[in-house]
Amino acid sequence: MSLDPQPYLDAIESHLQRLLTPPENASSDMYGMMRYHMGWADEALRPLEAPRGKRLRPLLCLLACEAAGGDWRSAVPAACAIELVHNFSLLHDDIEDNSTTRRHRPTAWTLWGVPQALNTGDAMWAVSHLANHELTALGHPPERVLAAIRRLDEACLRLCSGQYLDLRFEQMDVVSVAEYEEMISGKTAALLSAAVAIGALLGGAEEGVVEEWAAYGHLLGISFQVVDDILGIWGDAEETGKSAASDIVTRKKTLPVLYALDWEREQGLSDLADLYARPTIEKADVAQALALLERAGARKYAQRWADDRQEQGLAHLRDAGGQPDVTAALAVLTLTLLYRLS
Amino acid sequence: MSLDPQPYLDAIESHLQRLLTPPENASSDMYGMMRYHMGWADEALRPLEAPRGKRLRPLLCLLACEAAGGDWRSAVPAACAIELVHNFSLLHDDIEDNSTTRRHRPTAWTLWGVPQALNTGDAMWAVSHLANHELTALGHPPERVLAAIRRLDEACLRLCSGQYLDLRFEQMDVVSVAEYEEMISGKTAALLSAAVAIGALLGGAEEGVVEEWAAYGHLLGISFQVVDDILGIWGDAEETGKSAASDIVTRKKTLPVLYALDWEREQGLSDLADLYARPTIEKADVAQALALLERAGARKYAQRWADDRQEQGLAHLRDAGGQPDVTAALAVLTLTLLYRLS
Repeated sequence: MSLDPQPYLDAIESHLQRLLTPPENASSDMYGMMRYHMGWADEALRPLEAPRGKRLRPLLCLLACEAAGGDWRSAVPAACAIELVHNFSLLHDDIEDNSTTRRHRPTAWTLWGVPQALNTGDAMWAVSHLANHELTALGHPPERVLAAIRRLDEACLRLCSGQYLDLRFEQMDVVSVAEYEEMISGKTAALLSAAVAIGALLGGAEEGVVEEWAAYGHLLGISFQVVDDILGIWGDAEETGKSAASDIVTRKKTLPVLYALDWEREQGLSDLADLYARPTIEKADVAQALALLERAGARKYAQRWADDRQEQGLAHLRDAGGQPDVTAALAVLTLTLLYRLS
Repeated sequence: MSLDPQPYLDAIESHLQRLLTPPENASSDMYGMMRYHMGWADEALRPLEAPRGKRLRPLLCLLACEAAGGDWRSAVPAACAIELVHNFSLLHDDIEDNSTTRRHRPTAWTLWGVPQALNTGDAMWAVSHLANHELTALGHPPERVLAAIRRLDEACLRLCSGQYLDLRFEQMDVVSVAEYEEMISGKTAALLSAAVAIGALLGGAEEGVVEEWAAYGHLLGISFQVVDDILGIWGDAEETGKSAASDIVTRKKTLPVLYALDWEREQGLSDLADLYARPTIEKADVAQALALLERAGARKYAQRWADDRQEQGLAHLRDAGGQPDVTAALAVLTLTLLYRLS
């Protein structure tokens, strides 16, 4: 984007650092585990520069605040609260999904066990909620602070509903495209939607305008996820850093696969379903799976699905009627996210 | 107490039920698991009357509100938020402590696995936070709602710090009485303290008075925990429903034991330490452990410790200067909790 994101990212990082500095009377190791997860500490909890998240949600929050006519600096605690909610959910997801690696490092539970990692996630959630109370000192009236907190709480509940569905899908034979959309609406889109809605709210936008931002964030979120699904199957292994067709090997029920299974059922076929019903999918089966997805038109369908929603999302961004230069930067950022290679 | 608690308990239960009724577009099974944990559903998530918690925290919240001169009905959502925070922490504790039974029923994780139980706890936390936003419609000004939310968020963070310490103590050879007090201040007292402080705040108490309530709740909480410790060793098995001296068999590091170990170190002795260093403690060793605790004066010490803090707590309750009849009822309730047999 033409706008330099660095000042926003620097403000986010330094405020996150402050939020996760242990108060004098607190257990510094509990904060140490949070700092490890954020990429600021090594396994012995010593300071370190490790790979971090992209801080996409807080960046979107600050840009939405500015686009809505506010001072983005006054939204920094809210942006950080959103990033910490995202990271608390990753700490818990890693336990729930039995993931041993995140950002090329061991996950917290593999280092300190499930009990401490679970509790560290809870602590991060509490810290995130406390951050929002700083908004008052930055000049936001209490009604507005309450509205921001409420939107974040609602997003948290949707996040949990999405995760519930994702976990349940593992046990289900047939998952419809509609059910899948509901799942990613919670698991991926709810927090992105809250990020821009809260930013706009703190920027002084009226309720109706905030809803345009929320709709933009939601559509950005679900198309972002489906682009991820496409990359998980057809992404270049060198670009994504994952093995080729990793989502096929792990039999993830992502949109292209669900669509292809649906298409097969309509045609009275079951080739892909049979392949996915095997106890394991070997690397040798991947070529066959790719051919079956191709036959169903699954890649084209998923790309179209993401493009449609991205287009609708950008329409809501336009309708939000924010500052033209920041809105343009957001539109560019949106397209960068959706036409990424990894 | 002379005051009938039933109307308060009924209002709490019916509001909790409403909060955990799935909205139309939500996954009803996720709410079903929350309802199971609350004692309102069986393992197939069908409605059921099962043993429930005592709802002690929300009851204290409503009584504090009334004592401070407010209408207790206007504090019901906040009281329920506190009870849901307590229950979310139990859902997570059961995973962290590997507990298979709670209130005579299988714990959620044993029925639905760690991933779903963990996520159900997260969802309950989100529902609890949303409950506080209902306070606005009940006439509380936004500054007061924010202050109540903030106190709950701070209590959540202390709860996590306490749980962190409790988990760490399992790996430590020597835990001091001071470290133990810090742990129970977080794990047991923080939420009890927040319950009465939030009640008083919503009842219209000034900041200084709210702090008297918070101090009362804190001291009630830590003495309540040490009474629990005493019952875990010397409680009548028939009254407590647990096996005799259950905390000795499981080698829990509770106050009487920590005090006795400390006393032995000062005397240059190590009999109890040696006993606790064995791979397992058999029922036959219990009599010896009890004798060693007796020799150190551990029971008397713990009882005195709890009595002192209970006395200080009641002094803060008096200093809060609330309505005499409700304050008297709270004092009676406090004594009932601290001189209980189970």
